[in-house]
Amino acid sequence: MNPYGSESDLTGAATLTSCPTSFIPKAVRGSLFFFLDDPGTDNDPVSSYRYYEDGILILTDDGHIADIGSATDMQSRYGLTHRDIIDHSGKLIVPGFIDTHTHYPQSGIIAAYGYQLIEWLEKYAFPAEAEFIDKHYARTISRFFLSELLRNGTTTALIFGSVHKVSAEALFEEAEKLNMRIIGGKIMMDRNAPQYLLDTPETAYSDSKALIETWHNKRGRIRYAITPRFAATSSNEQLQTAQRLYHAYDDVYLQTHVSENQHEIAWVKRLFPSSKSYLNVYNDFGLVGPRSIFAHGIHLTDDEFKLLADKNAAIAFCPTSNLFLGSGLFNFNHACLASVRLTLGTDIGAGTSFSMLKTMAEAYKVVQLQSNFASASKKKAALTPFKAFYMTTLGAARALFLEDKIGTLQPGKEGDFIVLNPDATPLLSFRMKKTLTLADRLFAFMMLADDRAINAVYLMGKRWQNSEA
Amino acid sequence: MNPYGSESDLTGAATLTSCPTSFIPKAVRGSLFFFLDDPGTDNDPVSSYRYYEDGILILTDDGHIADIGSATDMQSRYGLTHRDIIDHSGKLIVPGFIDTHTHYPQSGIIAAYGYQLIEWLEKYAFPAEAEFIDKHYARTISRFFLSELLRNGTTTALIFGSVHKVSAEALFEEAEKLNMRIIGGKIMMDRNAPQYLLDTPETAYSDSKALIETWHNKRGRIRYAITPRFAATSSNEQLQTAQRLYHAYDDVYLQTHVSENQHEIAWVKRLFPSSKSYLNVYNDFGLVGPRSIFAHGIHLTDDEFKLLADKNAAIAFCPTSNLFLGSGLFNFNHACLASVRLTLGTDIGAGTSFSMLKTMAEAYKVVQLQSNFASASKKKAALTPFKAFYMTTLGAARALFLEDKIGTLQPGKEGDFIVLNPDATPLLSFRMKKTLTLADRLFAFMMLADDRAINAVYLMGKRWQNSEA
Repeated sequence: MNPYGSESDLTGAATLTSCPTSFIPKAVRGSLFFFLDDPGTDNDPVSSYRYYEDGILILTDDGHIADIGSATDMQSRYGLTHRDIIDHSGKLIVPGFIDTHTHYPQSGIIAAYGYQLIEWLEKYAFPAEAEFIDKHYARTISRFFLSELLRNGTTTALIFGSVHKVSAEALFEEAEKLNMRIIGGKIMMDRNAPQYLLDTPETAYSDSKALIETWHNKRGRIRYAITPRFAATSSNEQLQTAQRLYHAYDDVYLQTHVSENQHEIAWVKRLFPSSKSYLNVYNDFGLVGPRSIFAHGIHLTDDEFKLLADKNAAIAFCPTSNLFLGSGLFNFNHACLASVRLTLGTDIGAGTSFSMLKTMAEAYKVVQLQSNFASASKKKAALTPFKAFYMTTLGAARALFLEDKIGTLQPGKEGDFIVLNPDATPLLSFRMKKTLTLADRLFAFMMLADDRAINAVYLMGKRWQNSEA
Repeated sequence: MNPYGSESDLTGAATLTSCPTSFIPKAVRGSLFFFLDDPGTDNDPVSSYRYYEDGILILTDDGHIADIGSATDMQSRYGLTHRDIIDHSGKLIVPGFIDTHTHYPQSGIIAAYGYQLIEWLEKYAFPAEAEFIDKHYARTISRFFLSELLRNGTTTALIFGSVHKVSAEALFEEAEKLNMRIIGGKIMMDRNAPQYLLDTPETAYSDSKALIETWHNKRGRIRYAITPRFAATSSNEQLQTAQRLYHAYDDVYLQTHVSENQHEIAWVKRLFPSSKSYLNVYNDFGLVGPRSIFAHGIHLTDDEFKLLADKNAAIAFCPTSNLFLGSGLFNFNHACLASVRLTLGTDIGAGTSFSMLKTMAEAYKVVQLQSNFASASKKKAALTPFKAFYMTTLGAARALFLEDKIGTLQPGKEGDFIVLNPDATPLLSFRMKKTLTLADRLFAFMMLADDRAINAVYLMGKRWQNSEA
């Protein structure tokens, strides 16, 4: 039935090792671009970013950023010779992308045909996740998944496992080998899903606790996210255990879904009749706060946006998924007005691309379309390329309370950065030659580029090498 | 200001020749897939298509399809040896894609930031088109454009030039060298645009007539399309000359835009107060009929869909453009119900990709989103992968009244076909291994593949070679 090979071939292909090289260069040269602050919706927010057309980044021996500036300044300050410098001249170096919402066990069901959210979960997502009871399989898919993240320039992600504890272990073990800054967790789900995927309040608590105590701030650059799938699949008791964990550990995250689909919203309303709104279900259990990241939020009210902002919680806007499932158009302008911490997620496997560039492109389209549906009297802002790049770098780092570590190229930060090639495809190269401004070039990258434009990826100063390439 | 090179570099890069090889193979082997009829919206419309998992296509000496069938049958019927066969086993051979709406002079303004239709035209499209007064430049961009079509597996397109006669000449001359089946025309536009881009009813008539008499069914595989830009930029007199030309020549096409944007619709209503609707403006001038193709039609009423169907006219649905400009969601379900001839267009340069695969993917998303906005009582169909592939092959050929020549792989047709590689990227390969049905595999191609998956392109039986590759 399938001329393109069987499941068993998969394992072989994906077990190829991918690993960082051991070498940390003293200096890296190229055009350098990063944010110091939120660019807002200005078209040319010069004070929010730094751009060195010919710049050099200096790295410490342990892969942190030591200094950054124009090539001339850095060369004279550090007495660099050409043997000290890895030269990416003509290419654009930016902080590694941050994907704030994705499900690694759904890697194999990307592009599954024909349904909206609830049916899609039942028909595709749940059966796919059942396989992650097998740690060997979980490890194989983790390798593939992390390698796809890196091929696409994503150096940090907030990741859902399956309900199985081993799914998180496999992911963390593979991320540790790569020294990736990964945040993830096993799903908590004790009702309204197939029996074979349910845990209990007790096992969800003990498994999550054990994972936190083994991994969170303990091994590699791993942090843990308490992961109730969404309100409809956790009992009150389970949401209470999530609350207990969220408040028991420093820096621990909370990731879940909110207001993605109208049927889902109606269902949650029936299940939690006393909560004021969908987001308030989580708030009633003390789960809305710093380091809590809510995926989608398409149909949130202004009151809910305000609650998120007041509580320092964040939204992961997932445009490729929202379009693929026909869930609706995220209200970017209202989210900005409310000053919510706003980030982008791929939402693999309802999302259709691992690429944060593609995700920015579809975010732009959603915002364009949203403006069209808005009343003519309320002229809305487009998603500027600056805002889009901010949302996938420093903006995401801030939403994750990691701006002291990643998301920018300032001295002291971890050396997670990527190199974008403006000549990656004939069309990109053609378009780039017609650009006049940095904004134009960023916009060309976000609208036209894909994984081919990710020329190099550095993790803590070491260049990642994909052995499949 | 632009570190990625200047305009002058462009010319050099794009003048690299791309050409078909001179060799026509006797037989081509691979998985073969093509339509005999409209698959409708059925999920498994087996009687509408042919699929040979291991098939062979036999070509005549002049590049037409002589026969097609299973490899076993064809080998025994034609006594083929392995030296007669070009082997694409493991890959999927389909008819070349057909793009029914695109503007080649807008190649350089793909991904131009921040506006909806009318402002986008004024700010980006008009200035870009002004350059096509220069035939040398027009030729350079034609080469780039046709090469991008072919790299993306598009072997036939319906193409807008600029207002300048030389823009069409340059395009046709380059298409003739490649022996591509191209339909195109110079824009007619005598009002409501910058002075430097206006023609007159008289020059529009004489230039179009001269182009028709030189090219249409005369040289290569070129046909002509009378090309009034849209109702707002042609006077009544000019629309009358368009009508005269449309009815004076056999097989001549009419291409224009309709109902893309609410502001545009309101404007046309003000300009033609006596016409019943936007489409009726064209109909009042006798321009709605066989071989007339209307781009967009996002906001058409059911009466207008019916008029298109009754008159055997066609719609080019352009999803990447409709999302990029925020124009709105094409009503696919109503168009299907009305049995309108329905095709897909990239609409470069408001569209964001030359790839018909990417265009199918975004069409799927628009249809998913449209379903969401529909009332719950009216459950709507998704865009099946069969329908999407039909719309870009046989469906488009029928809309263009070219089903005797292209769009399918039946004996007697021109040998325009492409080879899709299921292993083009790690993600595509990974996903393909998990597919169970042909529908799944077509869907994976349309959602996940891009130009990298176009492994080979044959024009009249000759394999095209991109000398830039």
